[in-house]
Amino acid sequence: MSAGGFTAKHLAIVGLGLMGGSMALALRPYADRITAVDPDPHTRDYACRVGMVDAATDDLKTGVSEADVVVLAAPVRTILSMVRNRIGAYLRMNTLLIDIGSTKEDICNAMGALPIGIQAVGGHPMTGKEQSGCEASEATLFQNRPFVLCPTRRTTPAARLRALAFVEALGAVAIEMDAHRHDRIVAAISHLPYLLSAALVTTVAQEAENDDAVWALAAGGFRDMSRLAGQDVRMMGDILSTNTQAVATLLAHFRMQLAMLEAMLISRDEQKLAERLTPARTARLAWVQRQENGRKNDGG
Amino acid sequence: MSAGGFTAKHLAIVGLGLMGGSMALALRPYADRITAVDPDPHTRDYACRVGMVDAATDDLKTGVSEADVVVLAAPVRTILSMVRNRIGAYLRMNTLLIDIGSTKEDICNAMGALPIGIQAVGGHPMTGKEQSGCEASEATLFQNRPFVLCPTRRTTPAARLRALAFVEALGAVAIEMDAHRHDRIVAAISHLPYLLSAALVTTVAQEAENDDAVWALAAGGFRDMSRLAGQDVRMMGDILSTNTQAVATLLAHFRMQLAMLEAMLISRDEQKLAERLTPARTARLAWVQRQENGRKNDGG
Repeated sequence: MSAGGFTAKHLAIVGLGLMGGSMALALRPYADRITAVDPDPHTRDYACRVGMVDAATDDLKTGVSEADVVVLAAPVRTILSMVRNRIGAYLRMNTLLIDIGSTKEDICNAMGALPIGIQAVGGHPMTGKEQSGCEASEATLFQNRPFVLCPTRRTTPAARLRALAFVEALGAVAIEMDAHRHDRIVAAISHLPYLLSAALVTTVAQEAENDDAVWALAAGGFRDMSRLAGQDVRMMGDILSTNTQAVATLLAHFRMQLAMLEAMLISRDEQKLAERLTPARTARLAWVQRQENGRKNDGG
Repeated sequence: MSAGGFTAKHLAIVGLGLMGGSMALALRPYADRITAVDPDPHTRDYACRVGMVDAATDDLKTGVSEADVVVLAAPVRTILSMVRNRIGAYLRMNTLLIDIGSTKEDICNAMGALPIGIQAVGGHPMTGKEQSGCEASEATLFQNRPFVLCPTRRTTPAARLRALAFVEALGAVAIEMDAHRHDRIVAAISHLPYLLSAALVTTVAQEAENDDAVWALAAGGFRDMSRLAGQDVRMMGDILSTNTQAVATLLAHFRMQLAMLEAMLISRDEQKLAERLTPARTARLAWVQRQENGRKNDGG
């Protein structure tokens, strides 16, 4: 089903980081006017100077009250606080409100309590890059990437169609699911991996206290496994604190898997160890293959 | 200290995978003749056809008995078996014997029992790429990468200088250390990360059994964290079985780190959680910076 063309008379983006900035660039052709809300004067100056947005303010009410489409692209708990405490009073009727917070259950619940008439939909684009910040923005950041949409009690059929059109305008692929299911999935593929990466870096840093050659020898494997540990701690703290139960559950599952491998390693049961490592390899290779097929089918 | 020019009248490479093949390509200018020993007829045909080596055989004795430099580039336990059981009887006096097995203590101990006159040095190039196999070989694979050299009881001062010259000819950076220290370091930066990656993929695959959208949403973070799980299981089994004690020790340290994070997460002690996650981020960023400075200083 095509969602139909997305247009906005006035698009307001709250939070001009990598995501918000990239959204402004990607949606330029579809919006008559784009305004931004961001607390950082340097970011506001930059975004106006390069023409990423038409105007920028640090005042939420000023930024959003004339908009017909509002995107909340701030850290999760900033979004939560805005949705719970303030934004409902500022928005016009029939405004499409989408957030892009990395956890969805708390935000979607809060959206459900907004005034009737606000067309609120939870969102999460599954994309990113190592750099962060507005100046790293790219119009193609969402291209062919999954963009999860989660219904709220304020998601009317019309809101849903507008959100689908919004995702299509970004060049992303909409995947609709409820917020609870989303949070469980990202706990597995994103939040658990972050904690593992951080615990690994801490373990390796402890080794390096006794032997500085650790850092000199660390190579590609460590590079990959440590990348997530470099993520912004406040952002990740927000995410973990709004997805604690799912992350704790996945941690318990992970511990079991690791304990099995450890038992086989220590007991030198090489046959059993290989029998557990082989399906992991198969699953990784199948996933990579699936990703590559996806790209081919996109013609990309 | 410059190690002086490396030359070989007859270089024999045992095992023509990515490493052995890349070594053949890199050392072409320094060797009058290169022969290879490999059990796979397709690999032997390929290497001879493209001129990577001058001749290839599946017979160890034929391949190495005329060589003045022999590189063992097979899986760790194949190297161990050759060093313990056979190669001592095949080699000429004063042959430089280097292996590139990923664990060093068992191999270096075995090398120490070779006949006096064999110039044996343990080696481990800290490089690689996602593809494996002879056809993925690149002459530049070792360029500016660390190459650990570990002394054995058969490493004379002359052997050490020849090994240093060998590493220099590869374009790599020699780092000398004893085998026990090497194995502890790679347990931290390479073998522990492999087990974490495998346990993560298994955990995620288990989730995906209940919800296929897991694979569709998995993105860059999962890509990085799952890459090591795709490594060859037999190769990794060899490595783990020859480094069990160090890996088990690092696993115990890692478990403690992860348990600390888990306790803070579940008790919602966000301040303490941030205080533990911040040093991990700092360490990762410092390591990346160090790597980048290293590349700049290489003029690369």
